Amino acid sequence: MTTADILITNGIVLTMDSNDSEIANGAVAIKGDQIAAVGPAADLAPWKAARVIDAQGGIIMPGLVNTHTHAAMTCFRGLADDLPLMTWLDEHIFPAESHLDARKVYCGALLACAEMILSGTTCFCDMYLFEDAVAQAAKDAGIRAVVGEVLYDFPSPNYGPIEQGFAYSEMLIAKWQDDPLITIAIEPHSPYLCAPDLLQRAFSLTEAHGIPLVIHLSETPGEVAALKEKYGRTPVQHLADLGLLAPNLLACHCVALTAEDIALLARFDVKVAHNPESNMKLASGIAPIPQLLDRGICVGLGTDGCASNNNLDLFQEMDTTAKLHKVKTLDPTVLDARTVLRMATVQGATALGLGAMTGSLQPGRRADLIIVDIRKPHLTPMYHPASHLVYAAKGSDVTTSIINGRIVMENRHLLTFDLDKAMEDVMRIAAVIRATQ
Amino acid sequence: MTTADILITNGIVLTMDSNDSEIANGAVAIKGDQIAAVGPAADLAPWKAARVIDAQGGIIMPGLVNTHTHAAMTCFRGLADDLPLMTWLDEHIFPAESHLDARKVYCGALLACAEMILSGTTCFCDMYLFEDAVAQAAKDAGIRAVVGEVLYDFPSPNYGPIEQGFAYSEMLIAKWQDDPLITIAIEPHSPYLCAPDLLQRAFSLTEAHGIPLVIHLSETPGEVAALKEKYGRTPVQHLADLGLLAPNLLACHCVALTAEDIALLARFDVKVAHNPESNMKLASGIAPIPQLLDRGICVGLGTDGCASNNNLDLFQEMDTTAKLHKVKTLDPTVLDARTVLRMATVQGATALGLGAMTGSLQPGRRADLIIVDIRKPHLTPMYHPASHLVYAAKGSDVTTSIINGRIVMENRHLLTFDLDKAMEDVMRIAAVIRATQ
Repeated sequence: MTTADILITNGIVLTMDSNDSEIANGAVAIKGDQIAAVGPAADLAPWKAARVIDAQGGIIMPGLVNTHTHAAMTCFRGLADDLPLMTWLDEHIFPAESHLDARKVYCGALLACAEMILSGTTCFCDMYLFEDAVAQAAKDAGIRAVVGEVLYDFPSPNYGPIEQGFAYSEMLIAKWQDDPLITIAIEPHSPYLCAPDLLQRAFSLTEAHGIPLVIHLSETPGEVAALKEKYGRTPVQHLADLGLLAPNLLACHCVALTAEDIALLARFDVKVAHNPESNMKLASGIAPIPQLLDRGICVGLGTDGCASNNNLDLFQEMDTTAKLHKVKTLDPTVLDARTVLRMATVQGATALGLGAMTGSLQPGRRADLIIVDIRKPHLTPMYHPASHLVYAAKGSDVTTSIINGRIVMENRHLLTFDLDKAMEDVMRIAAVIRATQ
Repeated sequence: MTTADILITNGIVLTMDSNDSEIANGAVAIKGDQIAAVGPAADLAPWKAARVIDAQGGIIMPGLVNTHTHAAMTCFRGLADDLPLMTWLDEHIFPAESHLDARKVYCGALLACAEMILSGTTCFCDMYLFEDAVAQAAKDAGIRAVVGEVLYDFPSPNYGPIEQGFAYSEMLIAKWQDDPLITIAIEPHSPYLCAPDLLQRAFSLTEAHGIPLVIHLSETPGEVAALKEKYGRTPVQHLADLGLLAPNLLACHCVALTAEDIALLARFDVKVAHNPESNMKLASGIAPIPQLLDRGICVGLGTDGCASNNNLDLFQEMDTTAKLHKVKTLDPTVLDARTVLRMATVQGATALGLGAMTGSLQPGRRADLIIVDIRKPHLTPMYHPASHLVYAAKGSDVTTSIINGRIVMENRHLLTFDLDKAMEDVMRIAAVIRATQ
């Protein structure tokens, strides 16, 4: 086979494969939705392709994977900041959220997809309300997504009582099961908002369908204290007791962990989503990521919702991750650039259960990749590509994005939907939200 | 007077004046090198201007002030990361620096000026070798700068013995005294590399000429321990003993301070340059900025050199500043967006002794300002401009930059020098540096 649909050539290829292979002057051939070949540009020169993209010396790499966000919260970006957590939630976010409906969530999520694609993200994991609308927005935007309706003990503005929440989740599973971009997950909010039977039923559903279970876990010391008060156990121990610790569990945040918690997460191969900027902005604390990595735990990066960030740029999140743990540990060698880059790509994909599908450039993997322009003053000179990607590049340096073999952004132009209209829609929603404050 | 050279209209004007005035639909008139008027667009509509710039609903604000960098270290961007400090310095930075000359410093500084202008910085304070070349680069780039040759006890690759360092500094003062963009400072490296007599002589020179004294101070706990060992005093106490604490002293870093140090800095109105990302990356620690601000100390922001950052983007530095101190103190209300924005503008200008000249938009101040495009998905919707500038905007959202009344960047195109050539020059220098490693 020496024909391809797309041939990207003349770039530095970072494969993020198990050897972290880097090809100085490389090329990637794409056929249909898959990567057909990766190698030196000279080796791929004989390939014939309907479309040839010249990377112009830039970096060709897997798209970034955002393992935890609430996409539709773009509607609340910058609505309220710098407040105590409960004031922020009770007086601003909850009143605003009470006005949400499927259309508003669609609009907010579509705008988030634009921001993510324009900053190099090709896959995200979402937890929110009206997730069918989020799945549709992701599909319309052409971005890969793991989505799940948030489940909790109290009635939801979307589905009402929890019984219907499970029915809604099963509807999502059935509706999206053959979609090339969308994976459905089951997403109980947290051990503090979900009773043990809700959690166990959610877990059973993931077992039956072989899908991910996503939960907020040990985000703040206050949450841990409340769980201990209620169950006499840390949140992680509580989930262990309930039988929920498993390789398909994605635990988001994991800021406040004991050594025993870490051992449990490692023993059951639980995956972790690290959201440093949100944890900083909300003053939640700093997750013990170096210890998690030392124990072999798979950690991906996430932005969290952009009401607590306030952006969805994983390039900036990589930079913050690498720096934050250095100053936390007072050790400049922890979380080096390559480690952080793997967290944002292949480790993130693995955390979502998609490691065999995306997150690295290898033949047979889906063609989810980006091109980063390095002909910029802030990326000049270049000694080590990984260093630049983590410490110097911005999302705005991504020129081209291909997801599932489709070019969704080129020369910084989004090709899959009308961005101006998407922005106008959210501005109109914001006018409504402003009136709730 | 109702004529202007440039009229910028149809924008949200953030003046950063003492009332933090914000004008929803505002305009700024520029005549020569100065701001002639600031007000509602309707009020300035009668003004006639040779050039009218439509801000298209974007934010018109003072350019950002980078209070501490080593501009020419762009040549070493990403050369070595994630290493213990002494390995980084001894095996990478010092060998590379030994190959520097005035031309290389000029090229590195010119590239830094491009990066700074393109990310919204209109004024920077530099400490390095061959500073006459840095001043020339800043002048050629059209950016405002405070520059000073680094002074220390051992021979310099530029001027040789310290005696000639003072002669070189006096030459700089004489050469640049009437320049509209360049201010010369005296910049002894630090209390650990400068003997007491060097420090006192440096201070006398600043007194004689009414110029700033810039120094690295208490950057790491190790430095503090070494000074205590040598002098029995903290670095701040040591400078107090020597009579160096004064309103014209800009102390860079100030990571490791005692309560007594903070009281001394406040008592003598010493200015502080905060460089959070460099302090994080080098694992130096977190400066006690909330306490400094509580004591009324003027704190500006800096990127430090981009070998330890690795970028010069003050928008990202603002974001990091606001978040880092929240997680450090576990208080989400500290360093709110407005406070951080003032640190990056008017407080930075004041820290450099230029508060009456730049850092705010007021009639009579020099016209140093930028326009930020908010028609971007990651800046939609907008509830509060200050929140967006700190938590969501990137340097790449700055479309236009005016310094000293001159348009130096427009629609993201640098107008003052050949950027492609500047990048090529530094890439050639990088090839030489690579060979030193």
